[in-house]
Formats: sequence, C-alpha cells, structure tokens
Amino acid sequence: MATLKDVAAKCGLTVTTVSRVLNNRGYISEETRAKVYAAMEELNYQPNEVARSLSKKSTKTIGVIVPHIRHPYFSEMISNIENAANKQGYKIILANSKGAKHKEKEYLDMCTSNRVAGVILFSSSVQVSEFADSKIPLVTVERFIENGTAAVECDNEQGGMLAAQALIDSGCKNVLMISGVVNNSMPADDRVKGFAKVCEKNGISYKEIVTSQDQYESLDYHSLLDSALKLDSDIDGVFASSDLIAAQVLQVCGKIGRKVPEDIKLVGFDDVMISRLTTPPISTIHQPIKEMAEMAVELVISATEGKVVPKRTLLPVSYIERESTI
Amino acid sequence: MATLKDVAAKCGLTVTTVSRVLNNRGYISEETRAKVYAAMEELNYQPNEVARSLSKKSTKTIGVIVPHIRHPYFSEMISNIENAANKQGYKIILANSKGAKHKEKEYLDMCTSNRVAGVILFSSSVQVSEFADSKIPLVTVERFIENGTAAVECDNEQGGMLAAQALIDSGCKNVLMISGVVNNSMPADDRVKGFAKVCEKNGISYKEIVTSQDQYESLDYHSLLDSALKLDSDIDGVFASSDLIAAQVLQVCGKIGRKVPEDIKLVGFDDVMISRLTTPPISTIHQPIKEMAEMAVELVISATEGKVVPKRTLLPVSYIERESTI
Repeated sequence: MATLKDVAAKCGLTVTTVSRVLNNRGYISEETRAKVYAAMEELNYQPNEVARSLSKKSTKTIGVIVPHIRHPYFSEMISNIENAANKQGYKIILANSKGAKHKEKEYLDMCTSNRVAGVILFSSSVQVSEFADSKIPLVTVERFIENGTAAVECDNEQGGMLAAQALIDSGCKNVLMISGVVNNSMPADDRVKGFAKVCEKNGISYKEIVTSQDQYESLDYHSLLDSALKLDSDIDGVFASSDLIAAQVLQVCGKIGRKVPEDIKLVGFDDVMISRLTTPPISTIHQPIKEMAEMAVELVISATEGKVVPKRTLLPVSYIERESTI
Repeated sequence: MATLKDVAAKCGLTVTTVSRVLNNRGYISEETRAKVYAAMEELNYQPNEVARSLSKKSTKTIGVIVPHIRHPYFSEMISNIENAANKQGYKIILANSKGAKHKEKEYLDMCTSNRVAGVILFSSSVQVSEFADSKIPLVTVERFIENGTAAVECDNEQGGMLAAQALIDSGCKNVLMISGVVNNSMPADDRVKGFAKVCEKNGISYKEIVTSQDQYESLDYHSLLDSALKLDSDIDGVFASSDLIAAQVLQVCGKIGRKVPEDIKLVGFDDVMISRLTTPPISTIHQPIKEMAEMAVELVISATEGKVVPKRTLLPVSYIERESTI
C-alpha cells in the first residue's frame, strides 16, 4: 500500500507539505494541492484513518448494540441508523448482545477501547454503575438509563391506547394482549398500561399474557399463542406487542380454524415489513423507526461535540389500519 | 478516562512494565501481573485499541458491505457473520451500499483507510481494476470476482433444479419463475438455468419474468406479480427467487382469488424467517446461510494470517417442504 512518503516522493514535495494538504492546514497553493491529489490518485493512496483517529482521540464511528440483528424491528433500526450515520460521515460498528448482560458490558468496553465517538444501545440490562466511568456518549433507544447521555423513546402508552381503541371500534368485546417478557422492565410494559386503561374506560374485558425470555430469543411464540387462543374461545380481538408476534397469531388462528378479521381482529406493533407481507396484512401501531434512528445518531454526534442534548426524547406513534381489523 | 500512566502510578511500576503485562511480552512475575490487573480494574482502565491497531498495522475488524440491511436474507447473513466474527475476537463495521457502484467503491476505500483486517462484500458491481491495488483480503458472497481473495457461493443451479422438481412432483404443468434483476449478472441467473433444465427435461411449459432494480430497491413486487398472474390463468406453479417475493406472490394470489396450494403451488428461495411466518408457510430452497457466513469469516481471517485459501467455495442447498406445495 502506498504511504504518505511515496506520495511526497512522487510529487517532489516534503511529507509535511503533503500532510498539510491532506489535513487542509495552513496556506497551500492550488497548484500544490492539485499535484498532491494527482499523485495520491496515481498511487491509489488511502489515508490511514487509524493514525488520524489516534491524534484526534476518537474515531468517526458509532457503536450500535442490539439484542437481535435478524428481528425485523432491529434490522429496520440498524438500516436507518447506518443511513443517518453515513450522511454525517460516520460509520457503524454493529454488535449483537443477544440480550445478555455480560455481552452488553463486554461490547461497551469494546466500544470504549476502540475509541468510538459514542454508543447507541438498544435495551436493556446494563447497570448504572457499569457505565459510570465512561466518557463516551451513550444514547439508549426504547430504554431510559439514569446515567445515560440521552434516551429516545416512542410513546408506548399511547400505542397501547390506540390499539385498544382500534379493537373496540371494530366491535371487540373480549380482547387479549400479548405483552413483553415477564420480570424484565421493558418498553412493552407501557403498552399494557395504555391498553388496559382504554379497555377499563370502555368496560371491555381484557386479558394479558406475558412472554418468556426463551421465546424472545427464539422468536417463536406458536405454542404459547396456540394454548392461549384455545383456552378462551370468546376472544374476538388480539393486540400483539410486535408485528412478528402478530404474524404468528395469524398462523395459529389459521390452524385452529379461527378467521382474521371475521372471528378475531388483530393489531400488531412496530409497523415493520412483515406486517405488510402477511395475508391479510396486519393493522399495527406505527413506530417512527426512521425518525428515532436519525434522532439517536444526531444525539450521539451532538453530545460528541459537547452540546447539551435532551435527556429524554419521546416520539409519537400512530395507528395504521390494514385488513386484519376490517 | 484512566491512562497507562495512571495505572503505572497506581501500582508503583514503570509504564514499560505495565505495557509488558498488557501485551504479554517478556517475563513478568505473577505478583506484578496481579498488581497491574488490580490497578486496571480499580481505575476502570480501557486499553486504547486504536493505538494498538496502529502498531499492528491492522485492526481486529471486518468490513461487511451489503446492498440491503432490512432485507431478511441480509439481516440473517449479518447476524450470522457478527456471531462468527465475535467468536474469533473480531468486530464488524457494517455498511449499506444500496447496490450502488460508487457506494461500494466508497465503502471499500473507507474499509482500507480504517485498516480493517478484511472485507466481506455482498454483490455486485465492483470492477476488477477498482480493487486491484488493495492488500486487504476481499471475500465475496454469492458473487465471484476474478481478483477477489475468495468467493463463497451456494449451489444456485441445484436450487433451481430442486424447485422445478418440487413443482413438477406436486403436479404442476404450467410454471412461472420470477427471477433476479435484468441486465445485472447475479446469482439468481444460475437458478433460472437449473429451473429451465428440469422443466425442459420433463416437457413442462415454463415462463420467466425478470424484476427491475427499482423493485429490488423498494422490495415491492406486488404490481409486477399482479399483472403476471392475471395475464396467464393457466399458471399452476410459481418459483420465486426469494422468500420475500414468494410472500408477495401469496398476497397477490389472495387478492385475485387464486388459492395456494390448491390452485397454485409456490416455492421460494433462501429459507429465511418470513417463509415460516406466512399462511400457508412457504416451501423453499434452503440456503446454508449460517455456514456461508461462518465460511466467509473464516476465509477473511485465514487470508489475513497469510494462509492459502480456496478461491471458490460452493455450498449445497436443499429443498424444504412446507404447506405451499402440498
């Protein structure tokens, strides 16, 4: 690989001059600049970003830690974060914590050691003290951490309320909500709160079933849904806390001979691709994934630049009606 | 953030000694080692990987360039690559080229500048000459590049053959194949070859429709599928070149009143999550995504270590029967 020295030799200038051109430092004539760029091109010179980072104390890199890469919600998030970061000249290091506490800690250390500019963390369990000593901005999404730099959330309670209202508006009297993982304080908890509130206000009977960590890891909810739906044949509406679960509700309904939307109305959460690919397509609560991703990136970069950033940012959700409730 | 100097001061040793402990260089007594680690822990010292990388000329990082992050095939690939890399102590930098030639080139330069150990590239258009001068191992997946280090492919022709055979075995006489992007030499081309071969051998009439770059970018094939299926009401079997397209075939069939599997049998390709989440679940050609991802990571690391690696590695596919062909 060509070095700075090779470039300097090629155009008959000193290494210092070439370095000044590269870093845009001091007065450089147009002629010199052109000469240096021509030589760089000819030698296919690639500046060493590692060395540049070292002198700048941090890299133009954002660490992104998620509990799942293949889960459609996270793959949409990652895609939008990469896009927003790229527009600002940042690259992303992606790490999959699988929801494990020790993995999150390990990846946070890895990010620190690699002098990332900041970290965007999805979920979950990192203890306050474990991140206390780091000087790197930490932006959490869908999770508020007391000593994090900033948190970006969507209005989960409003989402639960909208879902309940949609089921009630389409005539449901006995509704079931499939919520997040038990014993693990997660955003889905607020969805339950909003859902319950609207059901109670309208005098509608509702049940909640919680899911397990195992199910979250395997992304397979079929047997849980099968027994829940068989147990109570009066259920005429289901709110699933993700579109992924909602798609499996559709399948289980098909298996046990209950039709969606005729017998059971169904509302999902997230508004990811899968909700548009099922038959019927699933009515769902739209999370502003693109805006949340852009906000997270913006907050990391602003914090890096020493700006004051909002501790919590709450973005609104909306209800998208498709065929599963009509 | 604590520095090496702080650690040295804390345990009353020289910076050189502490550095030797960190880098496991020369003889160090157990007592000294223990003292240094205790001080590091107490000060929450994070070694500067950027500085370490600089002296080692490369980082324990693999650049991963994909044309889509949210496409289920790529999100499964990325997840498996991250997992395999992590097991070997490598992290990944993820970049989304959106299939654009200039973006691929830009990201390859970014990877080079950041001294990644190697690059795993999905698709597509990078010209031989554009990467000719780089000394970084380049492993392509589902694409053979003459001057790449290594290519990992699945047996696409066999996949096309298996798909045709499955449709024929389930009684189809008029089959349709939805293939890759026109004018863009892609792996799906070999699927068509295998598919056509088996149809011809069995005297079965087949049609092929090609998809456009726009459709690939938007991941929306509904209108194309709608007109293709309406145009020919004799079609009794469809082979889609991805599960994502197959899921949309299911939806379009529902809309135009053709039942799967009663009226039309359907086979997808990839075997990603979506094929198990539709109603009915989709019969498909299983790509060994996990093994391909592991192989790509292994090849990058082996090449980094100066080992001779196979130029091409072809992994087998298999047919997974689900309800869309029964």
